[in-house]
Amino acid sequence: MLTGNLPKLLAFSGSAPSAIGVAAARSLCSGGVLVAHSTPGPGMHSAARDAPRAVAAAEEGVANPTRSGSDDAHPGYVPEPTEPGDRRHRLVIVGSGWGGFSLLKYADAKRVHVSMVSARPFFLFTPLLASTCVGTLEFRSIQEPVRNMRFPNEGDFHQAIVTGVDTSKQLLLCQSALDASYKYSVHYDTLVLGVGMRPNTFNIEGVTKYGHFLKELADARAIRVHLLRNLELACEPGVSAEERQRLLTVVIAGGGATGVEFGAELHDFLVQDLPKLYPHLQDHIRIVLVEPNDILGAFDSRLRTFAERKIRQRRDMTIVRKFIVDVTEKNVHFKDGTTHPFGVLVWVTGLAPSPLAVSLSQFPKNKQHQFVVDQQLRVTGIPNVYALGDCAAMTPALPCTAQVAERQGRYLASVLSNLGSDSAAVASAPPFVFKSMGMMAYVGDHDAISDLPVTKLSGKDA
Amino acid sequence: MLTGNLPKLLAFSGSAPSAIGVAAARSLCSGGVLVAHSTPGPGMHSAARDAPRAVAAAEEGVANPTRSGSDDAHPGYVPEPTEPGDRRHRLVIVGSGWGGFSLLKYADAKRVHVSMVSARPFFLFTPLLASTCVGTLEFRSIQEPVRNMRFPNEGDFHQAIVTGVDTSKQLLLCQSALDASYKYSVHYDTLVLGVGMRPNTFNIEGVTKYGHFLKELADARAIRVHLLRNLELACEPGVSAEERQRLLTVVIAGGGATGVEFGAELHDFLVQDLPKLYPHLQDHIRIVLVEPNDILGAFDSRLRTFAERKIRQRRDMTIVRKFIVDVTEKNVHFKDGTTHPFGVLVWVTGLAPSPLAVSLSQFPKNKQHQFVVDQQLRVTGIPNVYALGDCAAMTPALPCTAQVAERQGRYLASVLSNLGSDSAAVASAPPFVFKSMGMMAYVGDHDAISDLPVTKLSGKDA
Repeated sequence: MLTGNLPKLLAFSGSAPSAIGVAAARSLCSGGVLVAHSTPGPGMHSAARDAPRAVAAAEEGVANPTRSGSDDAHPGYVPEPTEPGDRRHRLVIVGSGWGGFSLLKYADAKRVHVSMVSARPFFLFTPLLASTCVGTLEFRSIQEPVRNMRFPNEGDFHQAIVTGVDTSKQLLLCQSALDASYKYSVHYDTLVLGVGMRPNTFNIEGVTKYGHFLKELADARAIRVHLLRNLELACEPGVSAEERQRLLTVVIAGGGATGVEFGAELHDFLVQDLPKLYPHLQDHIRIVLVEPNDILGAFDSRLRTFAERKIRQRRDMTIVRKFIVDVTEKNVHFKDGTTHPFGVLVWVTGLAPSPLAVSLSQFPKNKQHQFVVDQQLRVTGIPNVYALGDCAAMTPALPCTAQVAERQGRYLASVLSNLGSDSAAVASAPPFVFKSMGMMAYVGDHDAISDLPVTKLSGKDA
Repeated sequence: MLTGNLPKLLAFSGSAPSAIGVAAARSLCSGGVLVAHSTPGPGMHSAARDAPRAVAAAEEGVANPTRSGSDDAHPGYVPEPTEPGDRRHRLVIVGSGWGGFSLLKYADAKRVHVSMVSARPFFLFTPLLASTCVGTLEFRSIQEPVRNMRFPNEGDFHQAIVTGVDTSKQLLLCQSALDASYKYSVHYDTLVLGVGMRPNTFNIEGVTKYGHFLKELADARAIRVHLLRNLELACEPGVSAEERQRLLTVVIAGGGATGVEFGAELHDFLVQDLPKLYPHLQDHIRIVLVEPNDILGAFDSRLRTFAERKIRQRRDMTIVRKFIVDVTEKNVHFKDGTTHPFGVLVWVTGLAPSPLAVSLSQFPKNKQHQFVVDQQLRVTGIPNVYALGDCAAMTPALPCTAQVAERQGRYLASVLSNLGSDSAAVASAPPFVFKSMGMMAYVGDHDAISDLPVTKLSGKDA
């Protein structure tokens, strides 16, 4: 989106979105890294440095889940379910992402008692995160607090981390995301897991320490602060030409839709806004998109070619087809032994399972630690438990996109609203069928590519 | 301001101000604390926990200024002034507060070369800070980036801390607020100091550790996060009734205009917004205003009485007339040996000098470490150096208010714009005369008090 961004960026702000476009579809992109180990490491939580304490606490918490189904593994476990007197059918949703929030929004709260457990008290419109990094959109424009859904009781939402599931007693084991000393359980009649996935560092420690993910609001805020900081630092007397060049180099690891769109927003910002307030810096800024495979791999080859040609035409942007194997304070290191300096590193290479998914050892999972579900989204062999969105694996596999999760949430809302009255209808529900609305990606300079079911578009019309 | 705030608070957001009212005048309030020592301690910088790194770095930096006027005290000192080839008269402003920003805004940049050094890259509309804590206003609504003033060269603004002044060579010794390893000097022909004052902890260590100031955007953001956190924590199963009561108690230390207005905003939020989303919490919330002397001491006695009666009528608000002598993690301790628990502590008790003012030992200062200036705002005995706003002491003394600083900035802009052409006019400038526009303070429930030169108002008309 090309608008006058710089004053807004400087103010840590922006205008409200005039119109929120089609949610850009996302594919499970592989990204520009050499896969050393595919299992998640302990340091997987976001490195965002200025995260609100709530998010920071939540992210610390999820990195250390306890074993599931065992009271012993849950110190301070409170065996009494919350609100034991309530006899209505309790539908408990874990996670406030695309799937969980969609289910919360469309479920008929008059017919079932809906509650939610999530470390994040809001829904995030993730496809527009990149726009908030450069001030095109304000952070608040892309979030919706879950309490705006008007839970009738404060206790219907818990800002907590789920540390396990006691499937025999139908209890969720929770730990407050705000104060780890509060541990309790929440009883469910029906449980829906929408815990998503996390950024994948491929066990490269330097990523968490020196890079930024682009998955949470705190990530976008940290990128914005870091960009501003580097622009101001680059003006300081005494900064060498080489150091100025490094400060003004943004390396994006991962050429999927997220990486390409972040690069596009950054390019627009540099072309449109930067010259007004930093006239002498503009010639020094570089955007480096690192992707060993084709960029936008999930799109049609003609669209990919269009996008790549657009990007290569730009003076301020380059594509580097290499594998990153290490990240140090000021450099990314490639598999071929070369390096590239960076001032800001944005890491958008792929997905790893959530710690909860890893820890639920008795749940059936595929190689990516996604919960195996049937055509009604029921977790195979686990009574009264469903999964949706990125953390759920259907056959055949669906892409890990916002679109899929949102549709699954609507589907479950229509099915599960019968829980209190017509259990036969729930048991014999028709299968979930995904009809893609298509994919699109913004590539900068007012151009986008659209991979729609009926036609392929690129350029201004897309 | 009574508007629907809660969804906005939850979203860390709010709407733009429809109209910014008269800047509430501020007096040098003494506040509800026992003065143990009146000199500033080393831990004086804000405790805001989620401050952007730039601000955090700046605030760390200012706590350790070096001695002024000595090259030896400034390791890494760069002796060459920036832009030595520029022969225009260089007016350098230190500080981007009410005084400095007003001068920057009104100075004639065609006639003098204006540049600014400030650790904060924006101007902050401080009287509305309280409104941002509860979501009535968004943070961005009350700040204005200095680069929006269109410096023609990036180097005309330095996000830096001033660590000293070499008056013989007319050099400012600077340290980057973003990276302490960058140290350099900036040459001035004329220097204006608008470095303000800092919150006064009265050497009570616990204030910085457990309380919030209300002086910077980072403070307001931290208060907002803390309020939200406590509301969510108070809903968690397993939280005792006593602990819930503590979490929902906000103690405001200081009954000046800032404290009273923060309490008013909080009261409106509790009455208007809270019941919608936290219906069962509303009876547990308490606001405690601690002030050993009269509240709003700078106002007329009838206005004070009106405000106090309004506050005492509220179920959720009390005034405690005691001295605070210590602050621990969950309690304030009074001089009479009693204590009061708090969930959130907001500390708005008075002002202490900036570290730069303390360190400039050869500058003439009064007991409050304010620079002694003459009627033209020239620092006595220091050639080509002016001071304005809170850090400047005129005779007779003027209050430390936004209004005074803003008027002084306009005055200096008109005087100093002649620097390049008519030095005689500058030397013989008419004295600064302060004509008060009056004071006002919002006390909640749509009521305010106005202490105007012509009349005293209270209630809806104020």
